[in-house]
Amino acid sequence: MDNFADRLIQDIRRKNSCVCVGLDPRLDLIPKEIIDQSKSPPDAIFNFNKAIIDIVKDDVVAVKPQSAFYELYLSDGVRSFFDTIDYAHRQGLLVIADVKRSDIGSTAEAYAEAYLKNSQADAITINPFLGMDSIEPFVKLAHEEAKGLFILLKTSNPGSEDFQSIVLKDGTRLYQVMAEKIALLGKRLLGKNGYSSIGAVVGATFPDQAKVIRKLLPNTVFLVPGYGRQGAKAEDLLSYFNPDCSGAIINASRSIIYPETKCRNWQDAIREATKEMKDQINKIRTQNTGFIPNAFGTVFCILVY
Amino acid sequence: MDNFADRLIQDIRRKNSCVCVGLDPRLDLIPKEIIDQSKSPPDAIFNFNKAIIDIVKDDVVAVKPQSAFYELYLSDGVRSFFDTIDYAHRQGLLVIADVKRSDIGSTAEAYAEAYLKNSQADAITINPFLGMDSIEPFVKLAHEEAKGLFILLKTSNPGSEDFQSIVLKDGTRLYQVMAEKIALLGKRLLGKNGYSSIGAVVGATFPDQAKVIRKLLPNTVFLVPGYGRQGAKAEDLLSYFNPDCSGAIINASRSIIYPETKCRNWQDAIREATKEMKDQINKIRTQNTGFIPNAFGTVFCILVY
Repeated sequence: MDNFADRLIQDIRRKNSCVCVGLDPRLDLIPKEIIDQSKSPPDAIFNFNKAIIDIVKDDVVAVKPQSAFYELYLSDGVRSFFDTIDYAHRQGLLVIADVKRSDIGSTAEAYAEAYLKNSQADAITINPFLGMDSIEPFVKLAHEEAKGLFILLKTSNPGSEDFQSIVLKDGTRLYQVMAEKIALLGKRLLGKNGYSSIGAVVGATFPDQAKVIRKLLPNTVFLVPGYGRQGAKAEDLLSYFNPDCSGAIINASRSIIYPETKCRNWQDAIREATKEMKDQINKIRTQNTGFIPNAFGTVFCILVY
Repeated sequence: MDNFADRLIQDIRRKNSCVCVGLDPRLDLIPKEIIDQSKSPPDAIFNFNKAIIDIVKDDVVAVKPQSAFYELYLSDGVRSFFDTIDYAHRQGLLVIADVKRSDIGSTAEAYAEAYLKNSQADAITINPFLGMDSIEPFVKLAHEEAKGLFILLKTSNPGSEDFQSIVLKDGTRLYQVMAEKIALLGKRLLGKNGYSSIGAVVGATFPDQAKVIRKLLPNTVFLVPGYGRQGAKAEDLLSYFNPDCSGAIINASRSIIYPETKCRNWQDAIREATKEMKDQINKIRTQNTGFIPNAFGTVFCILVY
């Protein structure tokens, strides 16, 4: 099997989409007809997710179920989490399990095995705070299982400034030091399209920092949360791509799965919100060129930034 | 209900124990008779945990199930995780769910609700890397539900030096800045015994750093992992307590739940390993005084360190 980064890049090209949809189910926002047809909250969550996946699967490259909203319903919710992963996988979507796990030694090994081997997820998010040895078991299993990692580097919340952007002795910031370590680590899982299966999470709300990070990590796929309801705009997204307009997938959750319906049914509203986001991002990626961007080496966009 | 810190301090006094047992079930190490009596791996895990809890409950102040070893078996494993929490709770033990969760906004709220409200856990571990706003939902719910938090500050692995100990612009280290923020935050959940329900995780393998952190955090309970198989020794533990020998609980997992049996049955081996650890730590706490230490204010140990 191709490594995760290659599968991702191929799917981005094939679908001409950099969109990832966050599956953050909230019972109070799930359409009433789904609730009425379901036996329990975890069942409603799974039914809602299936409906979303069926609607968006041709226009998005990946889905990202966020574990917290499933763990809320304890083990029955976690069952819906893994059922959702399985369903999305069977529909041909890449699945990023947003679990943000972190631990050390044999515990990190157990988390890696749970998500990268025992589940159908293609990639997971991890938190690097515990140090590089805490990341190693995830890298090892990602390599063995042809799976991917997205390491939290600069998250989209204001508080990410507290520690991730803290200024170090030499005047650099913590995320820069981490980025350098991720660059080195990433070489071990480099795919044939020039990207590594070790990606990074870089929030859409910090485009200036993203420019710095992008230069440090030319071979790293960025998973970019914070687009849509969190306030980031399409024009800010250029900073997250490489000069050839590849190397980032943009996640939106609430703005896609709970769109304003404006007299449409919720299915049509989700479909249109997805297509609109895909088109907006592609417009940004292709602006000033007129070409459909390709990953690496072929057509370089002339970007003014 | 008393706040978490008060319940913990009272139980430490009542049981004269600062021991926390980590419930890190590993199928290859669970006694064969438990495996034979169980229907599935998650069932064996729960049966093993019940046996451990029954054996240790009078000699330990808390148990700490480590979520990774349960998530390994996906939703069925997670069911054993919550069943274990419920069982320990019914046996009168405090339960620290070692989940090391971290996220932002409504996602952090969902994690907080899952573990601090919907489960019977008394406290959870959380990862602060995403910033102070990511911690806030946990603090809010810990306050409302009289639950506790242990924020990762300096973990026991060598790699904790990578980022947690990184040197900042002013020459201090990241864990010092974080400790100052935890001190401030802790004031909001201060109990009548002088300790806050917002604790910190400080690994047993870094006693010198622990001295620095202890001075910054006199009102913070330390959850100290790394004792036993990870190599920390009893005499190193003094650095983690306040001068009155209170304010820390010491966790051991493998050395307690998988002890060398030495011709004893595994139940006796677990019982003796627990009592031995409890006695070793109490000896350290009472050395040079002869008094049983009390939390705050009554008898102060004269410690030479």
